[in-house]
Amino acid sequence: MKPIFVLNGPNLSRLGKREPGVYGTATLADIEALCRAEAQALGHAIDFRQSEREGELIEWLHAADDAACAVVLNPAAYGHTSIALLDAIQSIAVPVIECHLSNIAAREPFRHTTLTARACRGAIFGFGAASYTLAIRAAAALVGQ
Amino acid sequence: MKPIFVLNGPNLSRLGKREPGVYGTATLADIEALCRAEAQALGHAIDFRQSEREGELIEWLHAADDAACAVVLNPAAYGHTSIALLDAIQSIAVPVIECHLSNIAAREPFRHTTLTARACRGAIFGFGAASYTLAIRAAAALVGQ
Amino acid sequence: MKPIFVLNGPNLSRLGKREPGVYGTATLADIEALCRAEAQALGHAIDFRQSEREGELIEWLHAADDAACAVVLNPAAYGHTSIALLDAIQSIAVPVIECHLSNIAAREPFRHTTLTARACRGAIFGFGAASYTLAIRAAAALVGQ
Amino acid sequence: MKPIFVLNGPNLSRLGKREPGVYGTATLADIEALCRAEAQALGHAIDFRQSEREGELIEWLHAADDAACAVVLNPAAYGHTSIALLDAIQSIAVPVIECHLSNIAAREPFRHTTLTARACRGAIFGFGAASYTLAIRAAAALVGQ
Amino acid sequence: MKPIFVLNGPNLSRLGKREPGVYGTATLADIEALCRAEAQALGHAIDFRQSEREGELIEWLHAADDAACAVVLNPAAYGHTSIALLDAIQSIAVPVIECHLSNIAAREPFRHTTLTARACRGAIFGFGAASYTLAIRAAAALVGQ
Amino acid sequence: MKPIFVLNGPNLSRLGKREPGVYGTATLADIEALCRAEAQALGHAIDFRQSEREGELIEWLHAADDAACAVVLNPAAYGHTSIALLDAIQSIAVPVIECHLSNIAAREPFRHTTLTARACRGAIFGFGAASYTLAIRAAAALVGQ
Amino acid sequence: MKPIFVLNGPNLSRLGKREPGVYGTATLADIEALCRAEAQALGHAIDFRQSEREGELIEWLHAADDAACAVVLNPAAYGHTSIALLDAIQSIAVPVIECHLSNIAAREPFRHTTLTARACRGAIFGFGAASYTLAIRAAAALVGQ
Amino acid sequence: MKPIFVLNGPNLSRLGKREPGVYGTATLADIEALCRAEAQALGHAIDFRQSEREGELIEWLHAADDAACAVVLNPAAYGHTSIALLDAIQSIAVPVIECHLSNIAAREPFRHTTLTARACRGAIFGFGAASYTLAIRAAAALVGQ
Amino acid sequence: MKPIFVLNGPNLSRLGKREPGVYGTATLADIEALCRAEAQALGHAIDFRQSEREGELIEWLHAADDAACAVVLNPAAYGHTSIALLDAIQSIAVPVIECHLSNIAAREPFRHTTLTARACRGAIFGFGAASYTLAIRAAAALVGQ
Amino acid sequence: MKPIFVLNGPNLSRLGKREPGVYGTATLADIEALCRAEAQALGHAIDFRQSEREGELIEWLHAADDAACAVVLNPAAYGHTSIALLDAIQSIAVPVIECHLSNIAAREPFRHTTLTARACRGAIFGFGAASYTLAIRAAAALVGQ
Amino acid sequence: MKPIFVLNGPNLSRLGKREPGVYGTATLADIEALCRAEAQALGHAIDFRQSEREGELIEWLHAADDAACAVVLNPAAYGHTSIALLDAIQSIAVPVIECHLSNIAAREPFRHTTLTARACRGAIFGFGAASYTLAIRAAAALVGQ
Amino acid sequence: MKPIFVLNGPNLSRLGKREPGVYGTATLADIEALCRAEAQALGHAIDFRQSEREGELIEWLHAADDAACAVVLNPAAYGHTSIALLDAIQSIAVPVIECHLSNIAAREPFRHTTLTARACRGAIFGFGAASYTLAIRAAAALVGQ
Repeated sequence: MKPIFVLNGPNLSRLGKREPGVYGTATLADIEALCRAEAQALGHAIDFRQSEREGELIEWLHAADDAACAVVLNPAAYGHTSIALLDAIQSIAVPVIECHLSNIAAREPFRHTTLTARACRGAIFGFGAASYTLAIRAAAALVGQ
Repeated sequence: MKPIFVLNGPNLSRLGKREPGVYGTATLADIEALCRAEAQALGHAIDFRQSEREGELIEWLHAADDAACAVVLNPAAYGHTSIALLDAIQSIAVPVIECHLSNIAAREPFRHTTLTARACRGAIFGFGAASYTLAIRAAAALVGQ
Repeated sequence: MKPIFVLNGPNLSRLGKREPGVYGTATLADIEALCRAEAQALGHAIDFRQSEREGELIEWLHAADDAACAVVLNPAAYGHTSIALLDAIQSIAVPVIECHLSNIAAREPFRHTTLTARACRGAIFGFGAASYTLAIRAAAALVGQ
Repeated sequence: MKPIFVLNGPNLSRLGKREPGVYGTATLADIEALCRAEAQALGHAIDFRQSEREGELIEWLHAADDAACAVVLNPAAYGHTSIALLDAIQSIAVPVIECHLSNIAAREPFRHTTLTARACRGAIFGFGAASYTLAIRAAAALVGQ
Repeated sequence: MKPIFVLNGPNLSRLGKREPGVYGTATLADIEALCRAEAQALGHAIDFRQSEREGELIEWLHAADDAACAVVLNPAAYGHTSIALLDAIQSIAVPVIECHLSNIAAREPFRHTTLTARACRGAIFGFGAASYTLAIRAAAALVGQ
Repeated sequence: MKPIFVLNGPNLSRLGKREPGVYGTATLADIEALCRAEAQALGHAIDFRQSEREGELIEWLHAADDAACAVVLNPAAYGHTSIALLDAIQSIAVPVIECHLSNIAAREPFRHTTLTARACRGAIFGFGAASYTLAIRAAAALVGQ
Repeated sequence: MKPIFVLNGPNLSRLGKREPGVYGTATLADIEALCRAEAQALGHAIDFRQSEREGELIEWLHAADDAACAVVLNPAAYGHTSIALLDAIQSIAVPVIECHLSNIAAREPFRHTTLTARACRGAIFGFGAASYTLAIRAAAALVGQ
Repeated sequence: MKPIFVLNGPNLSRLGKREPGVYGTATLADIEALCRAEAQALGHAIDFRQSEREGELIEWLHAADDAACAVVLNPAAYGHTSIALLDAIQSIAVPVIECHLSNIAAREPFRHTTLTARACRGAIFGFGAASYTLAIRAAAALVGQ
Repeated sequence: MKPIFVLNGPNLSRLGKREPGVYGTATLADIEALCRAEAQALGHAIDFRQSEREGELIEWLHAADDAACAVVLNPAAYGHTSIALLDAIQSIAVPVIECHLSNIAAREPFRHTTLTARACRGAIFGFGAASYTLAIRAAAALVGQ
Repeated sequence: MKPIFVLNGPNLSRLGKREPGVYGTATLADIEALCRAEAQALGHAIDFRQSEREGELIEWLHAADDAACAVVLNPAAYGHTSIALLDAIQSIAVPVIECHLSNIAAREPFRHTTLTARACRGAIFGFGAASYTLAIRAAAALVGQ
Repeated sequence: MKPIFVLNGPNLSRLGKREPGVYGTATLADIEALCRAEAQALGHAIDFRQSEREGELIEWLHAADDAACAVVLNPAAYGHTSIALLDAIQSIAVPVIECHLSNIAAREPFRHTTLTARACRGAIFGFGAASYTLAIRAAAALVGQ
Repeated sequence: MKPIFVLNGPNLSRLGKREPGVYGTATLADIEALCRAEAQALGHAIDFRQSEREGELIEWLHAADDAACAVVLNPAAYGHTSIALLDAIQSIAVPVIECHLSNIAAREPFRHTTLTARACRGAIFGFGAASYTLAIRAAAALVGQ
């Protein structure tokens, strides 16, 4: 069976080093491990990636249409402004689930809305690393186990 | 141990009867059963309520501070405009998790932001009934397993 | 045959006492009598109610789905801001007609648009008590005498 | 006694041919017949006109001040933007009643408010051809008191 | 002589428990005692109430028209958005004075304006419990003239 | 020498009959007489016209480029919204001076700005009929230099 | 076969005389000749008209539904504000193509969006007279040669 | 003990002469006398000043930091727009209380918010001259604790 | 008879030195001479002043109420933002006429509206020094009636 | 002679697979073939490229300044928000023509304006693949003069 | 050689006393000393002034045109709103450089833009007292060493 | 000691070729030389880079946290819209200083605010190449303390 893609946007490579008051102390490697464990428990494999580049995220979303059964996407900052990412999600048939570590509704106004979520199945934010594992679980449910 | 309160806002009593294209065919009783099962599997009890009345929801949130270990709140329409509900969540110490059945980011602009989520730990929307079970799971994680 | 529900929102209980320059001198009882007469002439009964409470109006709209052939709704102030009332109207199949005593287009800007009317069949405003009797007549036409 | 003017704005000449999903299948001639019948039943004559031209509508409104006992005006698209039509209505003493075939509150945002209605006695929209007959009835009530 | 109504809106029941950094440590019972003392010193009685429910606050305002000589109203969150409360104040002849514990001008932008104050005689905010006693004094002055 | 065109927009034909509180009791014929006298005193002839029609005003402005030495334009309501009139003024070389009877800065917000004045040499408003004679004088000064 | 209507809005009669820096030195007659040649080369006839009057443009669009195979429309200033023209285009089945001489995206902000284009098949702007010949070519392709 | 500064902004020198419908018939000297009496009753002296000049008000606020125990400030028109006054209040440690004679929430929209109140302890408006005596009382309470 | 006050706001002292493309080459002394001549011809004296200071302009307006028969005011930049000047004009009974050298409607958007003109009798702008002499004439007409 | 660059922005690689209701069934290879044929017929070669990456599109635009005679640019989603692309177009002397497959004026509001077109010679949208061939033709005309 | 004027706006007299968390602990005298030293090192004298009064700052800017070789201006709060200061800078030929102690982009939204900087050569903010010395250096470079 | 990173955003590679009226005639190599000289004089080395790609700039900012003592960043167009760059600056501890060649406050409105500067220590713009050398100096001062 195809893996779940877990795609991470800009600055998530800095986790653990960056503003722990907002993002916690877990590193991206920690989150990858949690995702892998959660997916495994649900009978899924994951393909976990991170990029600072909007274009690379778009390419990975395109690739997901053939190579993944679902996508968990943390678009980070790009989620608030990128019409191109929105279009990329709309251009694929595989379900996409948005997640964010922090509670975007409780931060600066320019983070209160998410443009990319318009084309996703749903969104989960505010639970730190658990936002990812909940999203993996939501993906698994959509895919149908 | 104290139960998780699952509080439902206006018009959710109409589930199953109302706009199945948007909200699915599950009734609120179906969702209660799913929540109870999920909670039980995680070692929790739930107290499941619904009201059309903003004031009653506020009273239940106040009550939760003593009587619940966590709250899963689907504020429905009130989530987009009610400062009073926001204040109620801010006035209690017990963690609150917002959920919505539909993907509010993909609907009319006046549903794109949620005011109440500013005071919640996080939010989950777009997965139909699974928004609730994911929220129960998120609540259980916060409460401490 | 099922009656037409005539539902009245907040502060309409004050009619006659409240700002006669804006709302006229007829009381709500006078309006009820006019509605009853007009409906009778058209072969219909009415069920006439008033509440200051948004939640109660929502419950009555839900009830109308089974108990009424049509609804004439004067949402008063709630019509300009209540997404919850909008959702309630969208959740029922029975036709709803909005009416207002005063010409809302000629008052303060926050009264120029009506959110609830988006889910109604149509709206009538500015004719004082005659807004109601015209709405009864519109309801009767929709129901199909 | 003077007739009721029934004035129709731009594109209403296309009724029946134009977007039946929005405007229904009745032609403007059908509507004229309905209006005439309704008026006659109430003891009134009508003078029914249509123009694509804002200036001509203004001239007819001026003329109505001497020649009509009331005006039923469907300003169509001009109702949303024309300060000149608003001024024309304000410049005459005869009562004007606005009507629209479709539910303008349920269409594009630029149709949600009506500028011309600020100077009218009231407005009726959303009932198809019945918006006109209800407006005739409202006019008759205003004139007859 | 008729008492002064002191009406309290949503979440004020939580005083003392809720965000002491913003609202102080006095409970609503403490405030009631302060109000009673201040009123007594000025030769007045008070009728002190609290509700989470917008509709109930509207009913109390209506009742005040016959039963009170003045109203001190802390609308809390409803003051920023409720047209229905604004209408209720406009529908009564007895003077209404708005008060808030915190300095609403120094908080989130959605608290910077108060809609209900448009229909009040005046407003007092930012002095904690003293906002109430100053309002009682303002009420007494208005009544006593 | 070529005359000064004095062009009048929609509803100015109603002067004297229309809202004397706003526009005074002088008729358009009175204003024409005043303009003619003022122009004559300054050695100029005038060509005085009025139309309810935006297109006709545009045609007259085009004609003015050959036939007039200057234009005094009271665009009335069209001045606040008509890009087409703005373009017409920009398309001619003859100087245009905007005038209004009433003080547009003291009326509804949608009258506070004038779009057409952007392409005029200047504007004069608020002096009743004297707005016209001052504009004639301004025109004469511009032409005579 | 039916001709292509080429309809020109307000002030285009001034071409050549008006702001050559913005609109070039070609006259409307020059453009008509270019259009006729281009159409002929593609096996089409054209019917070329210009009016300053919004209402006349609406009437021509209505007429096009029977008399034309396609419409090339330069709405000029009306394109930015006229809901009535938008409605006229929506009321006909024949394809309409919008064109503008100048690059409207590079001019004043009130020219950056075009309302009428919402109901057109597409739009072409910024190429001077070539905007028309490209539009003729686009029309011919849609019509089917 | 240091006096309470009572600082008055622009146009308050016109009281009694200026718009009595809005501001009442008391002169500024009358208000000074009322303030002095109220302060005396509470064991305080006052230093009462008025200026049309923003800069002078800023200088007085600076001076208050050493010379006053509290400030009652009626910033008049400057309260709605002056960031400089806001900064001045923020730059001093002595408590400042804002007051206005009229109910600013019931006037033009540009008076609905007060920028300077953001840095004040609280605000009182709408009670005419009593706004000042209530503010004196609020100041005395703040100082006396 | 009392003189006409001609009051000039900030930076008008720089005339002739400042941006001649916008303001022309006449100095303020030149304008004073023109005003004096025009006034004299109409049987009036003038009192001509200039200040960079908002507060001083306010003081002069207050003084005008007793000492002037009318005021010609060029508020310059303060006209676009000063509520205090607006209040000053509203606080006096003597008629005030606003003038500007340049066509403010053709400059930056923040100059398109004038706040102070709301309280003036009328406004004249765009005619360079002639804006002043036309305003003197308008003042004389108002005073002389 | 230098070729025409045809540059394609994000997600255009998905053509044929992506939302055929909006974008049609032609693939990007089909469009390349059409462009090549059209260019050849006009005596031009093309260099056809696509990238998901804003930065790469900027680099190609820079390269075009030396290597291309003209650019046809479909910026896709980046056209609505990218100031960097706008700057890139402004930084080169070679003419750029914007094109879009779909009618952007008929889609979501955030697609109604195009930022990049401000620096282009013109724009063509709504004709599917024909938008490209029309743009090639427009480019050839600009280059060939 | 003429000195560099260093002009300081409202509340800068409070430096050291005022909000050290935002503005640091240096007094204005400390800053003057730093400026004098930096200027001297670059072969310049300075003329250092401070005023709370907008009008006085305008007068100093006018004076600078003859008496200074350059101006370093910290407009403080007036920089965000004063069109009059903007006009003053535009009315002089001597180069003006804006500086602020704090990072205005990181503070309240009403401080994010600076109106006065539009007419300055450039701006420097966020470096505390070093904002001044950098501005002195920028001034010296412009003046020509 | 670690070098100062000097990072340049999109289109700065075009300097000298691009709009010299806005950006001057210096090339990026010229600026690099100036920066190197200024840094050397202050005892610092620099690492000077440019990229059109937002993602690459983010990667360089991350790298700077370990490899640089400070960053001078000219984000060019990305500074006005990129939340991702803002987050990148917030994710590192090394001080960042923003600079721009042109006076962004004097250009199009969409360049008046800078999002990235919110997370920088300060900003310098408008001095051409000197913006960089001033920023180097500011960086050296921050590092050297």
